[in-house]
Amino acid sequence: MKADIGLIGLAVMGENLVLNMESKGFTVAVFNRTVEKVDKFVAGRGAGKNVIGCHSIEELCASLERPRKVMMLVKAGQAVDDFIEKVIPFLEEGDIIIDGGNSHYPDTIRRTKYVESKGLLYIGTGVSGGEEGALLGPSIMPGGSPAAWDAVKPIFQKIAAQTDAGEPCCDWVGQDGAGHFVKMVHNGIEYGDMQMICETYQMMKEGLGMSNEEMHEVFKDWNAGELDSYLIEITRDILGYKTPEGEAVIDQILDTAGQKGTGKWTAVSALDLGQPLTLIGEAVFARCLSALKDERVEAAKVLSGPAVQFDGDKVALVEDLKQALYASKIVSYAQGYQLMRAAAEEHSWKLNNGGIALMWRGGCIIRSVFLGKIKEAFDTNPDLVNLLLDPFFKDAVENAQAAWRRVVVKAVELGIPMPAISAALAYYDGYRTARLPANLLQAQRDYFGAHTYERLDKPRGKFFHTNWTGRGGDTAASTYMV
Amino acid sequence: MKADIGLIGLAVMGENLVLNMESKGFTVAVFNRTVEKVDKFVAGRGAGKNVIGCHSIEELCASLERPRKVMMLVKAGQAVDDFIEKVIPFLEEGDIIIDGGNSHYPDTIRRTKYVESKGLLYIGTGVSGGEEGALLGPSIMPGGSPAAWDAVKPIFQKIAAQTDAGEPCCDWVGQDGAGHFVKMVHNGIEYGDMQMICETYQMMKEGLGMSNEEMHEVFKDWNAGELDSYLIEITRDILGYKTPEGEAVIDQILDTAGQKGTGKWTAVSALDLGQPLTLIGEAVFARCLSALKDERVEAAKVLSGPAVQFDGDKVALVEDLKQALYASKIVSYAQGYQLMRAAAEEHSWKLNNGGIALMWRGGCIIRSVFLGKIKEAFDTNPDLVNLLLDPFFKDAVENAQAAWRRVVVKAVELGIPMPAISAALAYYDGYRTARLPANLLQAQRDYFGAHTYERLDKPRGKFFHTNWTGRGGDTAASTYMV
Repeated sequence: MKADIGLIGLAVMGENLVLNMESKGFTVAVFNRTVEKVDKFVAGRGAGKNVIGCHSIEELCASLERPRKVMMLVKAGQAVDDFIEKVIPFLEEGDIIIDGGNSHYPDTIRRTKYVESKGLLYIGTGVSGGEEGALLGPSIMPGGSPAAWDAVKPIFQKIAAQTDAGEPCCDWVGQDGAGHFVKMVHNGIEYGDMQMICETYQMMKEGLGMSNEEMHEVFKDWNAGELDSYLIEITRDILGYKTPEGEAVIDQILDTAGQKGTGKWTAVSALDLGQPLTLIGEAVFARCLSALKDERVEAAKVLSGPAVQFDGDKVALVEDLKQALYASKIVSYAQGYQLMRAAAEEHSWKLNNGGIALMWRGGCIIRSVFLGKIKEAFDTNPDLVNLLLDPFFKDAVENAQAAWRRVVVKAVELGIPMPAISAALAYYDGYRTARLPANLLQAQRDYFGAHTYERLDKPRGKFFHTNWTGRGGDTAASTYMV
Repeated sequence: MKADIGLIGLAVMGENLVLNMESKGFTVAVFNRTVEKVDKFVAGRGAGKNVIGCHSIEELCASLERPRKVMMLVKAGQAVDDFIEKVIPFLEEGDIIIDGGNSHYPDTIRRTKYVESKGLLYIGTGVSGGEEGALLGPSIMPGGSPAAWDAVKPIFQKIAAQTDAGEPCCDWVGQDGAGHFVKMVHNGIEYGDMQMICETYQMMKEGLGMSNEEMHEVFKDWNAGELDSYLIEITRDILGYKTPEGEAVIDQILDTAGQKGTGKWTAVSALDLGQPLTLIGEAVFARCLSALKDERVEAAKVLSGPAVQFDGDKVALVEDLKQALYASKIVSYAQGYQLMRAAAEEHSWKLNNGGIALMWRGGCIIRSVFLGKIKEAFDTNPDLVNLLLDPFFKDAVENAQAAWRRVVVKAVELGIPMPAISAALAYYDGYRTARLPANLLQAQRDYFGAHTYERLDKPRGKFFHTNWTGRGGDTAASTYMV
């Protein structure tokens, strides 16, 4: 019996993905660098299943149907390059190497080119959903060699999460690095979603003095409406969770989060492409600030805040928080799509915006009812420039905006940090401002560096310089940026 | 007659720097890739001065006193590497190559190593102050080969700006890329300063309906107090400037700003080093948003804002704006120093924090009275962890904070974007919060990805996992970040 696909890397994600594939009728050959793990898995969770344990890469490749599909679920970075080198000698023309890890998309662009130069095909695919998603149906975002898609599609679409309408949360994203790029943006959005939820939690906890049980009820309620999503659902569960001894685990957890991952890459990519992803930027920086725990503890003893206490209508503020979270979330996805549009232009990818929303609709960490609305928006208008301009989302934000503003005002008055939700509002106000104050900024640059400026009353691309001081001369700078 | 120093690159900055050096008694040999520029300069602005025009790099090097000092003021990037290659053959052991352009610090680290491997010395130096600063005395921030400093010091410290107390705004910053790193942070802070000024301008113009003349008076007033600085001064001048025909140039300038420069590098560096430079991040993103002019004009027709009009005390709000700007500025510099501290650790640089403030005190774009206070803070406590904890700045922020909060509240209510000033306030509130909501974030990560968490009641470095659902198993993830 030959296997339908081979999988390298038996950490939690890899194991669960194998079991998922097997449960859908596929035979899976498996290999792991530490080979004892192979035997342990085959004798353990894989016992009695269509799983072929292999003790070498040669054995793995020999056990596969052609075109061979070898999927790696190994740590992003050098390990991926190493396994590509180890696998290539045992493959033949048309065989497919698949990287299912969290690789950085420029690496995937490079690897696609390299593997194709060897006469093989390459797929770099985002897989989201955590360990449970991998087992029960993740969101899968494949990109790479287009010719590989037909061979991989039946497996990927079968193991992927399915929407209520029975559509698989997996479709072809685009060439070379497109799949990992979209997965990266997914993770950036995930950073934003998580941070915004944390900000509403902080306001309820510190501003309104609510108990875990009360907040559990709030998130339960929120999850029944327009905010219905996996992250709201697990927040509800987390706030309701107690150990058998009755301890609320949430109150024992240290408030420091790591950030050296795909969220950071999203922010850097936004900076590189000149796209204002302020909310994701703030979400990444919020993790950085959380990591400075010792500094914060010291600073809290020294720096004072406002003396104000909340004395308004708690129920009304909780309702406002829901609206603020919803409006900010719309901004976050608008920014994420803005980045994908810029990247598609930069890399000549043809991204299917609606399809991406569908891929995120189920299986992955950011799955939500909301994404169905995004799919509808792009189905209606595939050239939509900004999600905020879609009639549904435009109305949604406008309906929420008074509450949103009340929340930010209250946070500022109480001294409770809401960096992401505040940044979302500032972006909304900036995006709908036809004239921003950058005219003054350009005047400053021209004043001190002769950088020139364009004019409102002249065609774009014509540059003017003013000798503001009467001393600097009329020479415009060209080779310097200051 | 031999020259004291050679200069390659006769754009505005280069020309002005040559004239500055010559005016201080130094003889300067000059070369430019387009050699006609050399003749034009020697016959023009350099006529009758101790300037030696050279038509080749060989000629330039031959005309220099030993140890030769060859300074490049050319476009950052490949041109610098190209000139290094062209210069090396004509230099001897101990001679010094100086890059005075806006190079990215990792390039300077690499070039220092390379040039030193050839038996030569290298300096990468920040030069700030625009064309006027280059002519009259810039801020100079040199780093590179420490052995080069003694030879270059007499020239650099003489041509640099001098403080009122007669101290040169130039001192040794540190090894290899330290000078260009500090210059990069300077530019990031400059982005922030400019953006914050723009935000106060927007509030006065759009929120309070003030005229250019009224705002001119406000900035004149601000420049006489604690905000006394070059950027406030030129903003005053810009708002007061009219063409001979009586046109206010500021109102004709297109509100789009470029951003692909050192501000972006600062934000990326902050992300890489895990430091929350939220204000500079927002300032860079604000430029990105300003560049989307056509989109904003369209969005302004579609997206509504609040119906609120300002009907309060204008004079009081202008005073609040001043306080908000001052407090935000303190946050911005606190963040900048936070980044420098992290970089110094990463690269084993010994940065002189007080000395850096002194270098920025005069000559450069961000020069201000304020920097004298920063120098005092670090002179008093060289190990100061965060500028906000210095007694002077702690009091300053605390005195300003009520006004600062009123400004952000008003901006939110009126729908006027203040991304940088809002971000500064959120940072202040976050930094002084001993317990941020990242405990919830860590719980979420552990829930969906078995990423584990630390506990408040256990030593750091011990990681815990909760089987939140009762389904996921007790295996903690190790190789994946989600």
